[in-house]
Amino acid sequence: MNFERENIRRMAGYASGEQPDNELTIKLNTNENPYPPSPQVSEVLSQFNPESLRRYPPATAQKFRQLAAELHGLDLKNVIATRGGDELLRLVITTFVDPGEKIGMTDPTYSLYPVLAQIQDCPIVEVPLLDDWTLPGEFARSMNDAKVKLTFLVNPHAPTGALLPIDQISNLASELNSILLLDEAYVDFVDHSYQTSQLVKQHNNLVILRTLSKGYSLAGLRFGYGLADHSLIEPMLTKTRDSYNLDLISQLVAEAAIADQDYVRGNWQKVIIERNRLKAQLHELGILCADSQANFLLATIPESINFGAADLYQKLKERHILVRYFNADRLDDKLRISVGTKEENNQLLSTLREILNQS
Amino acid sequence: MNFERENIRRMAGYASGEQPDNELTIKLNTNENPYPPSPQVSEVLSQFNPESLRRYPPATAQKFRQLAAELHGLDLKNVIATRGGDELLRLVITTFVDPGEKIGMTDPTYSLYPVLAQIQDCPIVEVPLLDDWTLPGEFARSMNDAKVKLTFLVNPHAPTGALLPIDQISNLASELNSILLLDEAYVDFVDHSYQTSQLVKQHNNLVILRTLSKGYSLAGLRFGYGLADHSLIEPMLTKTRDSYNLDLISQLVAEAAIADQDYVRGNWQKVIIERNRLKAQLHELGILCADSQANFLLATIPESINFGAADLYQKLKERHILVRYFNADRLDDKLRISVGTKEENNQLLSTLREILNQS
Repeated sequence: MNFERENIRRMAGYASGEQPDNELTIKLNTNENPYPPSPQVSEVLSQFNPESLRRYPPATAQKFRQLAAELHGLDLKNVIATRGGDELLRLVITTFVDPGEKIGMTDPTYSLYPVLAQIQDCPIVEVPLLDDWTLPGEFARSMNDAKVKLTFLVNPHAPTGALLPIDQISNLASELNSILLLDEAYVDFVDHSYQTSQLVKQHNNLVILRTLSKGYSLAGLRFGYGLADHSLIEPMLTKTRDSYNLDLISQLVAEAAIADQDYVRGNWQKVIIERNRLKAQLHELGILCADSQANFLLATIPESINFGAADLYQKLKERHILVRYFNADRLDDKLRISVGTKEENNQLLSTLREILNQS
Repeated sequence: MNFERENIRRMAGYASGEQPDNELTIKLNTNENPYPPSPQVSEVLSQFNPESLRRYPPATAQKFRQLAAELHGLDLKNVIATRGGDELLRLVITTFVDPGEKIGMTDPTYSLYPVLAQIQDCPIVEVPLLDDWTLPGEFARSMNDAKVKLTFLVNPHAPTGALLPIDQISNLASELNSILLLDEAYVDFVDHSYQTSQLVKQHNNLVILRTLSKGYSLAGLRFGYGLADHSLIEPMLTKTRDSYNLDLISQLVAEAAIADQDYVRGNWQKVIIERNRLKAQLHELGILCADSQANFLLATIPESINFGAADLYQKLKERHILVRYFNADRLDDKLRISVGTKEENNQLLSTLREILNQS
């Protein structure tokens, strides 16, 4: 007997990025930060008293939420802390979208969204991005016409790195009848002053997702947060969130990390400089990349070489460099390359040169 | 505009146990273990390299699952690791129960179950326990007649501490048309040899929940696991679980803790001895407790004293001792008291004596 719900039986799960078994592999496939987390993280871990694990942790991560609120010029009641950004995505669906109601997104987008929609048994409405990866002008109207209840947007977009102007986000939030979930997992790597958090004061249908995974070099910690009007935060915080969703150690580490803004801003700058250098060097090899404001580049493999993106992915893997290949329409001639350290990027470039020269 | 789903709007969330703001409070209200976690936990934390947080953690906690499988005489494919037992409870509902389908439980039971059912918009079927807190003989038939899809049983039961015989569990699993979730959060404190894990080899509708929160003194870590037939584990592991549900540090700590069986077994024995002593001493004060195989006692406040359980709870709280009072039918003349250290239990007993003498 199969006890699975019909919608669960039909679906496939999310495929996590490859984790290499070889320590020497250069890992540019899952957009992790190439630099270590703040020294304050080491400090808080070295002072941690294991006996304190005996008791339940603070249920709503209030200290972290207070720090995040201050950072973004918002109130405590505008912040929820979550087990990575993933938990926030799930909570928004669980709290606001009935099974059978529609969830909207762009095509392409973060491949977890359709999986989460399937778990809630929600049909998906996809609107293709334009050729330059920008949103079509009728995006909000398309979502409203389809009676979408929740719209996911990645900003900067994955896997292209394209950034939405703040005015455009504000207009979308005004136009949409649905909740707009703005997934800013990569926003720390924008190369100019850019802050959308004040928009939640104007739009009670906007949820902004942030994570410590990329900008704070803490993918292994599973810590993220959401910013929104209190009317959206409150039911997720008090009703649908797993009680005690965040363990004690990760709360302390996250508090230390978000408090050390000087350190992370230095890291972000290093990533931005390397992203721009890598893009220019790839261009010299004939490999063009979309404009990216994230910590990755979407690189188009030119027709002039004798093999496609899938083959190049494989040839790099054989040489112990992992990048991301998407077997999908409009992406199957491209590779998504996370920005590594200077040394890692140089190794990628020299390996690419070697492969291209052999072709 | 209120964006909440109708079922979420109607519900109240789970009320977590009180956390005292005073460090000197004796906390006997949320069934935490009074002894510290294994020294191996300190060891693994002291050796932890914070730089490793930069990368995503092992997605399915395979090392921990292997250790748990060996401990219980099962295979890796019979184990899922979860963010506390709570995540497993949620996953079982998400994966196997459609909105509108019924979820069965006893009355009384763990107060989180109805909350999780409400989140999935599932009606609840409650069957009252008998006066001695045992299951009525027609329990399985009642569940089947009501077309329940998932049945929750706590074993040992909360808040009474009553243990189900293994034969009875096996018979229930055979009789029930639904999935049986056996919540063994407190099973480490059973005072005789008792192991239900082999039942999952005979019953493909049985999920056993275990947690490190109580037996391993790691409530602050949020780590639990489920044991079941592969056909039940697989969809939770590969489809409905949040990708990367467990951070790197908690995986390493949990591995160290579960591997140190000698240490935890010593702790369990100490708790059992104190439970039995506390029960006998409460009896001498005229306070009778149900037979408990857990790390707490359900104490009935006798009518001979001038105030009820709610007042006694309050008087203890004023004297910096927290216990649990349930404002519910059949429980409102009782207090649930977690077993503390010898010193904490003595303090509770002397404070009770003082209060009762004043009455």
